Amino acid sequence: MTIAVPQGYRLAGIYSGVKRNTSKLDLSLIVSDAPAVAAGVYTQNRVFAAPVALDRARTPARDIRAVVANSGNANACTGQRGMDDAEEMARVAAEVCGAKPSQALVLSTGIIGAFMPMEKIIPGIRAAAAALATNEDALVAAARGILTTDSTHKLAGRQITIDGRTIQITGMSKGAAMIGPNMATMLGLVLTDAALDVADAQAILSDVVGETFNCISVDGHMSTNDTVLLLANGAAGGKPLAKTGLQQFRQALHEVCGELARAIPADGEGATHLITMDVEGCATLDAARQIARTVADSPLVKTAVAGADPNWGRIVSAAGYAGIEFDPAQVDLRVNDFLLYQRGAPVEFDASVVSSSIRENRDTHILLSFGEGEARVRFWTTDLTAEYVRLNADYHT
Amino acid sequence: MTIAVPQGYRLAGIYSGVKRNTSKLDLSLIVSDAPAVAAGVYTQNRVFAAPVALDRARTPARDIRAVVANSGNANACTGQRGMDDAEEMARVAAEVCGAKPSQALVLSTGIIGAFMPMEKIIPGIRAAAAALATNEDALVAAARGILTTDSTHKLAGRQITIDGRTIQITGMSKGAAMIGPNMATMLGLVLTDAALDVADAQAILSDVVGETFNCISVDGHMSTNDTVLLLANGAAGGKPLAKTGLQQFRQALHEVCGELARAIPADGEGATHLITMDVEGCATLDAARQIARTVADSPLVKTAVAGADPNWGRIVSAAGYAGIEFDPAQVDLRVNDFLLYQRGAPVEFDASVVSSSIRENRDTHILLSFGEGEARVRFWTTDLTAEYVRLNADYHT
Repeated sequence: MTIAVPQGYRLAGIYSGVKRNTSKLDLSLIVSDAPAVAAGVYTQNRVFAAPVALDRARTPARDIRAVVANSGNANACTGQRGMDDAEEMARVAAEVCGAKPSQALVLSTGIIGAFMPMEKIIPGIRAAAAALATNEDALVAAARGILTTDSTHKLAGRQITIDGRTIQITGMSKGAAMIGPNMATMLGLVLTDAALDVADAQAILSDVVGETFNCISVDGHMSTNDTVLLLANGAAGGKPLAKTGLQQFRQALHEVCGELARAIPADGEGATHLITMDVEGCATLDAARQIARTVADSPLVKTAVAGADPNWGRIVSAAGYAGIEFDPAQVDLRVNDFLLYQRGAPVEFDASVVSSSIRENRDTHILLSFGEGEARVRFWTTDLTAEYVRLNADYHT
Repeated sequence: MTIAVPQGYRLAGIYSGVKRNTSKLDLSLIVSDAPAVAAGVYTQNRVFAAPVALDRARTPARDIRAVVANSGNANACTGQRGMDDAEEMARVAAEVCGAKPSQALVLSTGIIGAFMPMEKIIPGIRAAAAALATNEDALVAAARGILTTDSTHKLAGRQITIDGRTIQITGMSKGAAMIGPNMATMLGLVLTDAALDVADAQAILSDVVGETFNCISVDGHMSTNDTVLLLANGAAGGKPLAKTGLQQFRQALHEVCGELARAIPADGEGATHLITMDVEGCATLDAARQIARTVADSPLVKTAVAGADPNWGRIVSAAGYAGIEFDPAQVDLRVNDFLLYQRGAPVEFDASVVSSSIRENRDTHILLSFGEGEARVRFWTTDLTAEYVRLNADYHT
């Protein structure tokens, strides 16, 4: 659980003026002293933002030196001018650390459809460069600079020892829903001083994101900017990790990404429950995830949890329309460890006891078991409250 | 727009005691004096109710004499006993009109996971048989007997003339959301005195449902009991319709089903807006429907409409994650005829004027245009209000 800046990185988070609220931070700069291997996983939305286009074209890479991230403006639906602006942000971020323009990546989140205020961003990057540091305050400031409607910054870390070398993995994330007038996006950035082969870095990140960041949902609305980046600069020394060392790294990365992902629905706008859903006994991981996502996105399931209603019918019937073949007679359902449904039929239970258990705990656990195979997934989502609707129906211009 | 009982049908709607509220009706019986061609379209949920299993096995059919429908109990997740109960309901419904057990179909909607109270249902079917009539009061009573949380009964009809014969098509539907403790389901039943070939009846119904009942969404939660049935008893005389006569019939059936389908989101629980969404310029009908459904099911789009927020970013980005390939630079968006987004970029518009237009009208029109082809679809949904959440989070036992 060690959250520290990995070796060979410097960070800063500052206020550049993109956001109106001057007490917030809105621009982060992350620099690797040596060229780092970089991998990325991106939104599958057909409508994707300029920084996504830029990063997707540049990763996987072997020589990334800087990541510039801003909040308050997503640089999405901004056409060629948006692409030019993202490239200029990368160019200046590279310049301030003495790198080539192609050695920087960009993350943006915030309002869709507005041009990036470059007159604020560019001086902001230079100001961030002057503030770069290796201490925890700098790490927290960088984590704060990417937030939008989040109530708090999100950091996670692990320290592991591989072949006698200490390796640090530290990540930050943001996201609380796709809310506000056009506020959007889940972002994740993981830094490590491990040495990784570029192909391994991309393969491991893609796998781990599939089991973590792709296993969360607040409102099912995939944004134009969703991005997770991994930088590995090798400052811990040694050759690129392989075999058991690589497996050990993968496990630690999974833990870091799992914590960062879970923190997003835990901070869900207006939510009163964090729902952890285990779907097990499926033929494939994809099938398990598809069922979990469908149940997680059902407004009827989410409102039932908000109302502390142990409504097994909504959960089982949502699983039924996930588009996955299964034998309904093999389905079991537990909520907070109470068995509500067994082998395809309801079980007698004391609804008031189960309801109290839901009402009195912020965490709700749903376990759906099928008889189709061995695949399982853990998925996180929130309940759906009247407060969420009020936050999102509130009209701003 | 003629809503009348087609020739050769008798109907009744009564209170049998399944529902607690004695001022409601909860059992309907529809009898065709002559054997009718029957077609059905059913939920694709893997968890489907006993009456769906029964009807799906019996349709398409040439000799249906009776449909028994009840509300208050869905006979879903009830195992073999539920199947036995559905068969017994069909047997008694057939018996009271002098038909064989296999000549009846069953529709049920209401609570999931409770056994059908057969001690009320069976006397209810006999009482309904005694009340059968051909007048409009009987039609309205039958339409009322299938309601759950609907605020009003839903009827639609068309009278057309084909080859000098007057043909009546009259239908009823129910559904307002999948709400209440476990209340569920969209049901539709269309009666006609036209003569139809059984294969034509099934093919036309499947097509028309795809363009009407499958183009609505309240909360995206597909129920265990969704069913649309078409009965055609040929009492208007003549040979089975063919060619232009069949086309004319199809058009009228489309109008009837369109009205019945649209009435469901129009009656959506807690809704303050009925949203009509036209998606055009797609490569295929399936692609258009998939985009429309994805936008319609986005809580962010639905809350934006509730808040009268002309939030084009939410609409365009929801289209982007529908899983359909398209060129974002070819996308146009109009809301209530105001152009908000053109060729992939936001357009300057007066947000307060568009907001007023949304706020002041119960109907909101969204037009999303793509540059991929000629396919188009019309889809209906509701907004998402805090009131919907309150209704659905309310805990009943």
